[in-house]
Amino acid sequence: MTRSLSIFGATGSVGSSTLDLVRRDRDAWDVKVLTANSSAAELAALAQEFGAELAVVADEAHLPALRDALSGSSIEAAGGRDALCEAATRPADMSVAAIVGCAGLGPVMAAIEQGSSVALANKEALVSAGEVMTAAVERTGATLLPVDSEHNAIFQCLQGGAVEDVRWITLTASGGPLRTWSPAELAKATPQQAIAHPNWDMGAKISVDSATMFNKGLELIEAHHLFPVGLDRIRIVVHPQSVIHSMVEYRDGSTLAQLGPSDMKVPIASCLAWPERMETGCEPLDLPAIGSLTFEHPDEQRFPATRLAREAAEAGGAAPGVLNAANEVAVAAFLDGKIGFTRIAVLVEDALNRFAPPAPRSLAEVLCVDEEARAVAASMIETA
Amino acid sequence: MTRSLSIFGATGSVGSSTLDLVRRDRDAWDVKVLTANSSAAELAALAQEFGAELAVVADEAHLPALRDALSGSSIEAAGGRDALCEAATRPADMSVAAIVGCAGLGPVMAAIEQGSSVALANKEALVSAGEVMTAAVERTGATLLPVDSEHNAIFQCLQGGAVEDVRWITLTASGGPLRTWSPAELAKATPQQAIAHPNWDMGAKISVDSATMFNKGLELIEAHHLFPVGLDRIRIVVHPQSVIHSMVEYRDGSTLAQLGPSDMKVPIASCLAWPERMETGCEPLDLPAIGSLTFEHPDEQRFPATRLAREAAEAGGAAPGVLNAANEVAVAAFLDGKIGFTRIAVLVEDALNRFAPPAPRSLAEVLCVDEEARAVAASMIETA
Repeated sequence: MTRSLSIFGATGSVGSSTLDLVRRDRDAWDVKVLTANSSAAELAALAQEFGAELAVVADEAHLPALRDALSGSSIEAAGGRDALCEAATRPADMSVAAIVGCAGLGPVMAAIEQGSSVALANKEALVSAGEVMTAAVERTGATLLPVDSEHNAIFQCLQGGAVEDVRWITLTASGGPLRTWSPAELAKATPQQAIAHPNWDMGAKISVDSATMFNKGLELIEAHHLFPVGLDRIRIVVHPQSVIHSMVEYRDGSTLAQLGPSDMKVPIASCLAWPERMETGCEPLDLPAIGSLTFEHPDEQRFPATRLAREAAEAGGAAPGVLNAANEVAVAAFLDGKIGFTRIAVLVEDALNRFAPPAPRSLAEVLCVDEEARAVAASMIETA
Repeated sequence: MTRSLSIFGATGSVGSSTLDLVRRDRDAWDVKVLTANSSAAELAALAQEFGAELAVVADEAHLPALRDALSGSSIEAAGGRDALCEAATRPADMSVAAIVGCAGLGPVMAAIEQGSSVALANKEALVSAGEVMTAAVERTGATLLPVDSEHNAIFQCLQGGAVEDVRWITLTASGGPLRTWSPAELAKATPQQAIAHPNWDMGAKISVDSATMFNKGLELIEAHHLFPVGLDRIRIVVHPQSVIHSMVEYRDGSTLAQLGPSDMKVPIASCLAWPERMETGCEPLDLPAIGSLTFEHPDEQRFPATRLAREAAEAGGAAPGVLNAANEVAVAAFLDGKIGFTRIAVLVEDALNRFAPPAPRSLAEVLCVDEEARAVAASMIETA
């Protein structure tokens, strides 16, 4: 059976992995929409390879280049944020929402409105727009399939299980490259040290988030929206090898865990094929070769991010969005050499204390909170 | 909803744990039949506590004592092997098959004939009577729920999954108390050293099986019957902490694992409540307190049992039953000081080479193979 597929963010890491999987079984998929931020040439090549209906560049400045590259083909070209959202309204059995940042929110919401399946790789959707988005999912009956390896693990461990029977959801965290550093060492950590992630090959922003544990904090907020077991039943365990991607403990004492390689193809394939399975070409798990899996409690003294995220999730409303926006601004300032590593969390906490707008009730309000929180955080850095 | 329940082997370890769970939620269960081998007084007390319909002692010599203990109550008393099988024909929503050894085969088969749910804790049922039993399950539509912690783990990891999508089933093995011993040390291992199991509190026979790895070999044969993925897709990994009870790897590279305490209440509860969950009172899993989970390949030079079991399973027919019977005789001889530890596997291998009867086609033929294999093994010990 051929299923139709749209990928928002087709040239990024998740988009590329998705298309690699589609290449393994081309007849299974009918590619409808592919989008990119600005890489017009790459996008055009992919649209032609997969016979897409429509290619969209989010940055309208690159639309002429996209049009040129697609001239002579029957593939439509479009550009700009509105075109992105319009593209997400085109019927597709599966939409992969892989645009990074708040720019991805519009297409995610439009895809959810279709009521079909959305493989969600955009963190901001659940962190900043959590309540707005889960309400839309409930209303439209869309199926939300989490792409993040931790949430995908939990999703798999919950198959056949009931949320009422869950005693604990355990998010595992690698602890990042600075896990064993002292407070004094952390204060002096350089961007280069912070982005050297031990297990995953990721971008600079998310690597810093892994080093500060804000990545895990954001995931905690996401898990809270995806799996309504109550925030007090979601805990974090540091597991430096990142082999167990997360766990669900049921009330009888059984814990189900999902393990796998540090390869996004595995969770993406799980979403694409769900509730079935598909080949990914990943090597089998070789636990004797790995030898040992270790576990420790997170240290929220040295890494306050998970505490801040839990507090923001408890507060609800705009707080998680403020946390996310302030963190993005702080990480950018850290990468620019403007603030030290440990200042990131301090700045986020200050932003949360200073800026507490009412809960956003729409996508527009979510974006407004995001913008204002960024301005607040930026001004705090300037005046520091 | 109240469900009817019969327990075959109510005074043993699995039976006692089952009744402990029933005590937690008495209104959920209507206890029909309880049986014991010879403990008439204990059985009578349980039958009265749970308001059973019928109590059966397998050893008829204890029937007068059972009758005495139940006099004045409305509970029926019966004794002997035929009474045991008759009891298993009484309708019950769930039968727990927890009689150890080939004595348990008759009741298991009778329970399967009902076509309802059978929680299977009797190893011989699948090892010695595997093909006969799986044919009966297929014919009657009975639901087989494995109680053994490893098979229960696999059963849980397969929920929502398809056997065709399985790449590997990984049975974990503690490796037993002699895991790190040299061949010379193993040759001199005493019964006391062999029965000191690190993680589970078990009887002497099964503890020796854990030390020789025959326990894992028997489980391999059971898994082969329970989960038809093909013998070449079932592997064994030594995991001394016994926290991961087994795993299933799907073809996309996702591995699901079940973790839990070394407490039989957990898998028993999983069977009783399946597909739901019930409280067991077990403590939550505390991985940071455990600290580290380790994995290594089994060493089939020092511990040939899993190789012998795999060969017997490949041969099929009577071979697994011969392996099981010869192992029981050899373990008894080892515990009696008649043979050394490493002679157990040698004796089993010799028995398999010397005695290769045709595949049993009925329960009677299974029991016949068992008896003859015991005689062969016993004569080999006498003449050694």
